[in-house]
Amino acid sequence: MKILVINGPNLNLLGKREPEVYGKLSLKDIEDGLCKTFPRVGFAFFQSNHEGAIIDTLQSAQAEGVDGIVLNAAAYTHYSYAIRDAIAAIALPVIEVHISNILLREEFRKESVTAPVCKAQISGFGTEGYRIAVETLIQHFSQQQS
Amino acid sequence: MKILVINGPNLNLLGKREPEVYGKLSLKDIEDGLCKTFPRVGFAFFQSNHEGAIIDTLQSAQAEGVDGIVLNAAAYTHYSYAIRDAIAAIALPVIEVHISNILLREEFRKESVTAPVCKAQISGFGTEGYRIAVETLIQHFSQQQS
Amino acid sequence: MKILVINGPNLNLLGKREPEVYGKLSLKDIEDGLCKTFPRVGFAFFQSNHEGAIIDTLQSAQAEGVDGIVLNAAAYTHYSYAIRDAIAAIALPVIEVHISNILLREEFRKESVTAPVCKAQISGFGTEGYRIAVETLIQHFSQQQS
Amino acid sequence: MKILVINGPNLNLLGKREPEVYGKLSLKDIEDGLCKTFPRVGFAFFQSNHEGAIIDTLQSAQAEGVDGIVLNAAAYTHYSYAIRDAIAAIALPVIEVHISNILLREEFRKESVTAPVCKAQISGFGTEGYRIAVETLIQHFSQQQS
Amino acid sequence: MKILVINGPNLNLLGKREPEVYGKLSLKDIEDGLCKTFPRVGFAFFQSNHEGAIIDTLQSAQAEGVDGIVLNAAAYTHYSYAIRDAIAAIALPVIEVHISNILLREEFRKESVTAPVCKAQISGFGTEGYRIAVETLIQHFSQQQS
Amino acid sequence: MKILVINGPNLNLLGKREPEVYGKLSLKDIEDGLCKTFPRVGFAFFQSNHEGAIIDTLQSAQAEGVDGIVLNAAAYTHYSYAIRDAIAAIALPVIEVHISNILLREEFRKESVTAPVCKAQISGFGTEGYRIAVETLIQHFSQQQS
Amino acid sequence: MKILVINGPNLNLLGKREPEVYGKLSLKDIEDGLCKTFPRVGFAFFQSNHEGAIIDTLQSAQAEGVDGIVLNAAAYTHYSYAIRDAIAAIALPVIEVHISNILLREEFRKESVTAPVCKAQISGFGTEGYRIAVETLIQHFSQQQS
Amino acid sequence: MKILVINGPNLNLLGKREPEVYGKLSLKDIEDGLCKTFPRVGFAFFQSNHEGAIIDTLQSAQAEGVDGIVLNAAAYTHYSYAIRDAIAAIALPVIEVHISNILLREEFRKESVTAPVCKAQISGFGTEGYRIAVETLIQHFSQQQS
Amino acid sequence: MKILVINGPNLNLLGKREPEVYGKLSLKDIEDGLCKTFPRVGFAFFQSNHEGAIIDTLQSAQAEGVDGIVLNAAAYTHYSYAIRDAIAAIALPVIEVHISNILLREEFRKESVTAPVCKAQISGFGTEGYRIAVETLIQHFSQQQS
Amino acid sequence: MKILVINGPNLNLLGKREPEVYGKLSLKDIEDGLCKTFPRVGFAFFQSNHEGAIIDTLQSAQAEGVDGIVLNAAAYTHYSYAIRDAIAAIALPVIEVHISNILLREEFRKESVTAPVCKAQISGFGTEGYRIAVETLIQHFSQQQS
Amino acid sequence: MKILVINGPNLNLLGKREPEVYGKLSLKDIEDGLCKTFPRVGFAFFQSNHEGAIIDTLQSAQAEGVDGIVLNAAAYTHYSYAIRDAIAAIALPVIEVHISNILLREEFRKESVTAPVCKAQISGFGTEGYRIAVETLIQHFSQQQS
Amino acid sequence: MKILVINGPNLNLLGKREPEVYGKLSLKDIEDGLCKTFPRVGFAFFQSNHEGAIIDTLQSAQAEGVDGIVLNAAAYTHYSYAIRDAIAAIALPVIEVHISNILLREEFRKESVTAPVCKAQISGFGTEGYRIAVETLIQHFSQQQS
Repeated sequence: MKILVINGPNLNLLGKREPEVYGKLSLKDIEDGLCKTFPRVGFAFFQSNHEGAIIDTLQSAQAEGVDGIVLNAAAYTHYSYAIRDAIAAIALPVIEVHISNILLREEFRKESVTAPVCKAQISGFGTEGYRIAVETLIQHFSQQQS
Repeated sequence: MKILVINGPNLNLLGKREPEVYGKLSLKDIEDGLCKTFPRVGFAFFQSNHEGAIIDTLQSAQAEGVDGIVLNAAAYTHYSYAIRDAIAAIALPVIEVHISNILLREEFRKESVTAPVCKAQISGFGTEGYRIAVETLIQHFSQQQS
Repeated sequence: MKILVINGPNLNLLGKREPEVYGKLSLKDIEDGLCKTFPRVGFAFFQSNHEGAIIDTLQSAQAEGVDGIVLNAAAYTHYSYAIRDAIAAIALPVIEVHISNILLREEFRKESVTAPVCKAQISGFGTEGYRIAVETLIQHFSQQQS
Repeated sequence: MKILVINGPNLNLLGKREPEVYGKLSLKDIEDGLCKTFPRVGFAFFQSNHEGAIIDTLQSAQAEGVDGIVLNAAAYTHYSYAIRDAIAAIALPVIEVHISNILLREEFRKESVTAPVCKAQISGFGTEGYRIAVETLIQHFSQQQS
Repeated sequence: MKILVINGPNLNLLGKREPEVYGKLSLKDIEDGLCKTFPRVGFAFFQSNHEGAIIDTLQSAQAEGVDGIVLNAAAYTHYSYAIRDAIAAIALPVIEVHISNILLREEFRKESVTAPVCKAQISGFGTEGYRIAVETLIQHFSQQQS
Repeated sequence: MKILVINGPNLNLLGKREPEVYGKLSLKDIEDGLCKTFPRVGFAFFQSNHEGAIIDTLQSAQAEGVDGIVLNAAAYTHYSYAIRDAIAAIALPVIEVHISNILLREEFRKESVTAPVCKAQISGFGTEGYRIAVETLIQHFSQQQS
Repeated sequence: MKILVINGPNLNLLGKREPEVYGKLSLKDIEDGLCKTFPRVGFAFFQSNHEGAIIDTLQSAQAEGVDGIVLNAAAYTHYSYAIRDAIAAIALPVIEVHISNILLREEFRKESVTAPVCKAQISGFGTEGYRIAVETLIQHFSQQQS
Repeated sequence: MKILVINGPNLNLLGKREPEVYGKLSLKDIEDGLCKTFPRVGFAFFQSNHEGAIIDTLQSAQAEGVDGIVLNAAAYTHYSYAIRDAIAAIALPVIEVHISNILLREEFRKESVTAPVCKAQISGFGTEGYRIAVETLIQHFSQQQS
Repeated sequence: MKILVINGPNLNLLGKREPEVYGKLSLKDIEDGLCKTFPRVGFAFFQSNHEGAIIDTLQSAQAEGVDGIVLNAAAYTHYSYAIRDAIAAIALPVIEVHISNILLREEFRKESVTAPVCKAQISGFGTEGYRIAVETLIQHFSQQQS
Repeated sequence: MKILVINGPNLNLLGKREPEVYGKLSLKDIEDGLCKTFPRVGFAFFQSNHEGAIIDTLQSAQAEGVDGIVLNAAAYTHYSYAIRDAIAAIALPVIEVHISNILLREEFRKESVTAPVCKAQISGFGTEGYRIAVETLIQHFSQQQS
Repeated sequence: MKILVINGPNLNLLGKREPEVYGKLSLKDIEDGLCKTFPRVGFAFFQSNHEGAIIDTLQSAQAEGVDGIVLNAAAYTHYSYAIRDAIAAIALPVIEVHISNILLREEFRKESVTAPVCKAQISGFGTEGYRIAVETLIQHFSQQQS
Repeated sequence: MKILVINGPNLNLLGKREPEVYGKLSLKDIEDGLCKTFPRVGFAFFQSNHEGAIIDTLQSAQAEGVDGIVLNAAAYTHYSYAIRDAIAAIALPVIEVHISNILLREEFRKESVTAPVCKAQISGFGTEGYRIAVETLIQHFSQQQS
């Protein structure tokens, strides 16, 4: 099974940026953690500050054998209808992850324009959210196979 | 460890009510599934259509030795500031679960007045959401102990 | 045929509370009137100030042999999404009744959150509205039988 | 007793236009049905796509001996303050009828600008709504006479 | 000099309709009063409940030698963008008159969609408003001539 | 093939009214131009300032052998839900045309209540918009025939 | 008869400030003009940029023998609820005057918070508006005396 | 004299819940304090997390000899139109008390749907607010008696 | 102890202005009443229709030995952010008083821009509100001293 | 003549993505079709998921000899003020094309932030819209030349 | 060159009021600093809590030889349309200064009603903002002279 | 000292694009001017139409020795929450510059989503704004060093 983990703008600063909000782990730590926790999953990791690059990556996922996607679109979550259209256009299940409880923060972070086209959302679980999302995708596929 | 699972109005009809939205499992099935999956957790289950009864139950949880709470407040999610206040008033971690992706449904289901005071939210994972919430609480406590 | 007539909060005060708005008949008078007008209908009457109790009653109606429901949810009409979900969850036809023309009163009484899931609404006919609702249910069932 | 039944724009297409929403009966069928059901009522029927013509008809009703009016203003319900003013200006009781449950349809159909000046409203009862409205007017007048 | 006085829907009921709001004079009384007060002005009077007829009349005014227009569009004031466009399209000065202080009444009467394209507005002066409007047009033209 | 071209309020003033916005061609010029450009199409032209008359014309189109409709409802575009209902009720394709770029003008011209039930919209192409609309209808029917 | 003419902030600059909007007459010119036109009226004139001073003046008017008030509150028209309360608290008729058509200008000038408590409003008549207001007050009192 | 003091949801946690907001006194302390301060008043105390129970209690107060009511409806203050209707339906004076300055807290706490039907409101006086409310009721009745 | 009582615009008319809303006592009566009720308090009284004068007075209070302030800012309550800033800038406790229940009146009276920076609010207690506010300040200081 | 056709995010998936909404033709098919239909036009085609790349392309168009632009900005249509500024900054005519009737879809697709600065808009004509846009540009230039 | 520096309500408390927001310098310090930094500029300083006094001062500036104005209207910035009109009415350049970043504070501080008629705005530079504003005015005039 | 000057979309067209709004200087002119005015500052200049590239540049600034940033994000100012997050995530002071008075232009330009996380804002000073921003940063650092 192959899972693509996409992280949006400024998440490359994880661990450095406001650790009291986003935790102390770097993005590299999280990615390594996922590989260790799920040794039998083939992971592809992608981070970009560019909206268009995230769309390109979403579009090409299926051709590259990806089975499911974990997406933390960060600030783009709140206004990128272009990413929303990309998620809707591809056939793969996408799970939306937010590290912090976004409802506890600024007003503009309350709306997610991408969530309605994702399969599920998870927020407030800290960096554990990535692990939960991956685990859920695994279960989803193991159920389909049986 | 003791975990209290609270389900709000109409969730006693799970399995019967709109199964294409809420799945085919009854609430009993879900509760039994949790017990089987987590044999070492002491579960308390509570379902009520009464807003006040849910508040009573939230308030008395700690005195009854509960360590964490999984809450699906159903329709009360969208307007019960009284339940919100109860969650804020107690010292236990509460994880909010929604079976369906509530952002894909009616406008009034988009806002959760209880989510800002919960530790985390999970929606769209179907009845799997309960399992994920419990698992997260277990991890949360095992980390605290170590 | 069995018809359940549910009245919501403060309607137990009918006849006493603002008679220029709600008329001079007590709830007992209305219920007695319905029995006299429709001698062949089996009526069940329920009034409660408790949102949860109204939901409980809606849920158990079918098991108790009820064929149709007449509902005046009073103030809950304007914010109880939990009652709305209960109506949507049961298979019985529900007709919403309001004694006064609710559009002539305070702004918050203009929206009915329960009406979209009811079969029909009637308002401004005074206490006659109950009789019309019952009659319509009778016709509805007699048409189905033929 | 003389009752005027006014139907607004596009209701002349009843039976042809979206029968799953508006039923299979033509406007002629409904009018004939009313005459048959209430043989002792003198009916006047009027349908027009012209807002002004509906106002003219409302204004001249009393002079022509009409005792009460049943009005389905269709789309004009939602923006014709001129029809509203006409209803408010005449001394006759007007009952507003909508065939479908207008709350289940497009957003703009949720508001009725004419309802606040009507005596009562009825919606969602299908073409039965006309019969109920007429019956109510008859009762209203028989009570006044006694 | 020729002045056209246009009155919109339900103003033909003046004197009969809510005299405490609109005064006791009939439209005929007002028109006669204007003729008597301004014996040297050639008046044309037009009243209609039909939005389209008001537009037709506005459009043909200039061809019929009209120099200025006094308009009380009644309820159409609040939503008829078509009348607004007609006023904007013709070269004649239009003065908007309202008998009552429209700001003291229902919310929807607060906005005038026609006022921005009229030369001036006058409201709350009772039926005197018509006389003031005519006098102002006379002054306007006498100034232009000198 | 027969095509009906309907023009709404104040469009009879084309060429005279604000030519910098609407161009110098009269409505007659536009209609003649269409006949010349499409000699094999049978055209019916209708202009009215009356909302009801436009609805009447839309309703009777099919009975008179019309295959498709080009509609410029002018100001009615922005509030006539009655015209909207008429378009939705008939089986013919309707193409909405606006001469100017309506998004560059007053706020109230930004919303079209009729557009959602039209097959397509075209705005800002000047009087060329009519020609484009007709051509598109011709293509539409020639594709259906082949 | 004694009439008080109150002008609000920046109206002391009349004639100098944006003459294309407010005309070329100075406030002195307008006041002199009123005295000349109505030689038998005793005028009191007051202009202030101070909201509180306008309230003081409104309050003391009756004690100083004023019979009616003409008020152009300028910018305070749009937010001074304190001036509104002063108008409502005194027993004298107040007529609100605006020189320009305030509906043709900035959005914030569309609402008048003082108009609902004034007897009448007049706007867009240029500096003529003052003359009309005075004349109306004179008529008002002459009618009362007869 | 008999005074009923009603406290709404989560106020049974007073002293334990966020003492920096609500003070250190328990509800029992407050109630005891009232008895001690007003030895000649007969107090009835009621606290419930159930909206319906609060309505029941309000309704039965008069029958039980209560002369006036002090109400802190807590979170229900902001959305319980059913409690509002109960207050409006009974003949007793109700004084609304809030311990903290509710305007300094979350946005949803700014609106009180019950306040418009209460005799008076008091907020921000801490637990002193209860004492003030009782004292005011006593004065109110002593004035009525004299 | 020294207490400053500030009354805003139009409150100098108390007793004369709408006595059914504001009571029959003049401002002088209220001030005398306070002196009589609290003989050991040194009172300073200030009333002004000038927003700036109220700010000046608030600012100089502390230098003049004032210990606490009772403020009824009347209409300024609803829009004077300048008075709000003055309250926030000074170190003295301010208690906001409204004579009538402001929630029962016009929409614009529902918001208080000054309340969030006051220590407490009291409304609907009639002129008794001033006495309650003073008493509360006395208690506040006596507690601090002990 | 040289025409640049720009397609925005996810339009590279045309033919694959929701063909019931966007038709069965791929973007390549549409581009080839344009070349075949207009053999004498020199076409430049550009598609990108990157907002910045679309802006770069718009800016450099004139320097590369482009005479006019056909733009389908897809999701960027609804929020890219940066693309809007680019269109406004260049001297070339831009025609906005949408394949589907965007008014029939999600709420957020109703607003086009780029349309106000485009010469014209066309929506709902399917992939035919591109052909119409090109034809209009050709006519535009041929008229300018003559 | 003569520059007038106007400071609005509560700015006389600078240095004392919330120094963490507004800095530790008193208004006198700032004014002295400006004189020292710009020895060749003739400064006039004005501070008032009175909206009307600020308008008076703005109006009389030119007559007193002022060349440019630096304005910090404090709370009046957010609602004084009267000050806005004064700025628009005078011929002098006005630069708006805010000490703190007003976008980081309460919602009501986000809108500046005076900024649209000022030449430029500066906020968040602390008390340095005054110096920058003065320097810019000097440059502005030196450019005009050359 | 090293200062990074970032310019957003379409600012590479400065001097060419609407010079009456943005002035006649090209971006190169502005950058050269800064170097000449501040010979001792090490400048880095960056302009891009790509939101992601601006974020990349903001993120890498500190590693490249930059001490402070001057940012004109152009259209991205109004919706790029991703740029906002980048500014918040880095430790460097950012000053926001707008050439024109953005409050005098289209509605959507009124909100700046980046301003709340910038140190200060400056708008309406023309291209002088860049110079002011740089000077302020220099002062800021010289104060820190002393």
